[in-house]
Amino acid sequence: MSPAKVDFTERRGWIVPVGGREEKAGSADILRRFVELAGGDSARIAIIPTASVLPDTGERYEQLFRELGARAASSLPYAERRDADRADWMGLLDDATGIFLTGGNQLRISTILGGTPVAKALRRRNAKGVIVGGTSAGAAILSEHMIAYGEGGATPRAGTATVTPGLGLTNRVVIDQHFRQRDRLGRLLSALAYNPFAVGIGLDEDTAAFIDPDDTIHVAGTGGITIVDPSGITHSSVAEAHPGDPICVTGISLHILTAGATFNLHTRVATPPPPREDYDD
Amino acid sequence: MSPAKVDFTERRGWIVPVGGREEKAGSADILRRFVELAGGDSARIAIIPTASVLPDTGERYEQLFRELGARAASSLPYAERRDADRADWMGLLDDATGIFLTGGNQLRISTILGGTPVAKALRRRNAKGVIVGGTSAGAAILSEHMIAYGEGGATPRAGTATVTPGLGLTNRVVIDQHFRQRDRLGRLLSALAYNPFAVGIGLDEDTAAFIDPDDTIHVAGTGGITIVDPSGITHSSVAEAHPGDPICVTGISLHILTAGATFNLHTRVATPPPPREDYDD
Repeated sequence: MSPAKVDFTERRGWIVPVGGREEKAGSADILRRFVELAGGDSARIAIIPTASVLPDTGERYEQLFRELGARAASSLPYAERRDADRADWMGLLDDATGIFLTGGNQLRISTILGGTPVAKALRRRNAKGVIVGGTSAGAAILSEHMIAYGEGGATPRAGTATVTPGLGLTNRVVIDQHFRQRDRLGRLLSALAYNPFAVGIGLDEDTAAFIDPDDTIHVAGTGGITIVDPSGITHSSVAEAHPGDPICVTGISLHILTAGATFNLHTRVATPPPPREDYDD
Repeated sequence: MSPAKVDFTERRGWIVPVGGREEKAGSADILRRFVELAGGDSARIAIIPTASVLPDTGERYEQLFRELGARAASSLPYAERRDADRADWMGLLDDATGIFLTGGNQLRISTILGGTPVAKALRRRNAKGVIVGGTSAGAAILSEHMIAYGEGGATPRAGTATVTPGLGLTNRVVIDQHFRQRDRLGRLLSALAYNPFAVGIGLDEDTAAFIDPDDTIHVAGTGGITIVDPSGITHSSVAEAHPGDPICVTGISLHILTAGATFNLHTRVATPPPPREDYDD
């Protein structure tokens, strides 16, 4: 599974991993912005609640997206692999201007949809310009290499992060979610250290990385994003470490970004938010 | 309170913060190394159990240090400020070849001993070449700027770390302990971001930073040390952030070090452990 190929006559769509527990009442900044990028009042959003085992997850997001101004929002509750053959649901995917994956367990998404026409459709639609986002498990699944599970803790230990294939919309990032809330720096570092070509994105809850078609991340929401850039690593003991050993890794670059900040995945440059207008003391 | 002045005809002693819960049975690597640097079988170790409210903490370390080969080990249970006037205990401090502070609450140490002849004696003895170490609260207190308390979580938030004056053996580091076990990257980053001149040392349990007289850290123990070097910070929102806001900080350098690795506090260079002899697969 390789990243979705982009036709150079078109632009890839936005990729939007959300750290979980995004605000749903009130201003709902993250979901509102998702609807706007999907076309605002002409948006047709397909919801994939496959990660969740709760019966009403899809319906809940249908209602939310409609309340935020989308013209249509349809839940496609894929629950077993043969559901991938349903032509009516595929029609809704092909017609959608935005696709959103809910939270739950990312291994449910990959085991039910991996290798099916649905996974291919998600890559194809995103390559054609359709925004694809997800929250929590739905965020983890978006990238090529996904953290399936792993232990909490700030210090990376060998074998604590289990990395498995995701949907593959991009291979430039490895995503972790509930980041502050579940203490996941160590497992993100472990996952990156295996092959430090990707950038780690640790998403706090109610915080999103809006990755634009040019691979610049725009931060939104009330928490922080921890960007872990391993490209400058000067030493890593991962190859020699035994399971459970702490890993020695030197030369990691770290940025903590808040709403309005950006990070360019090509140049690896972090830019802070513009100054606050109201700052005067 | 400024860092202990070093007489250039002598060498400052080692400074040894330990992350808490160091191994006490078995090989007891950290405490054993402490005894060796204090003089081995001629070591006379003074123990300050002031951080602890348990009645037997001092006696326990007396026994441990004797079992590890020290010639003498004496607990000095300073429990209130006037205890600092006891001449017999001051005599033992002046005669010690190593001084060790136990765990507990670092604010007990600073409120009971701060500004007393005992605090001055610790700085004076260290400046004269005597090794001074401590575990957990006893580690936090060693530096000039100490994290008194703060919330866990990987993302720094304004006001989550309360920084107060410590013993001031060095101002080059800010120490945090139980690092992996209590998820403290965010509070360490918060503490450093106020004034990013110092280096952050996040100590896992059973892990120690042996800081030599030339300010190179030597890592010992079974966990990792997270070195946070903020000297390259390109942007920080600390000055503008409201309490509880996530802080935006870009350009942090991070190293995760394990036993045998070193970090030079002047050059800020991390060096990995030497290769394992037994690696052959």
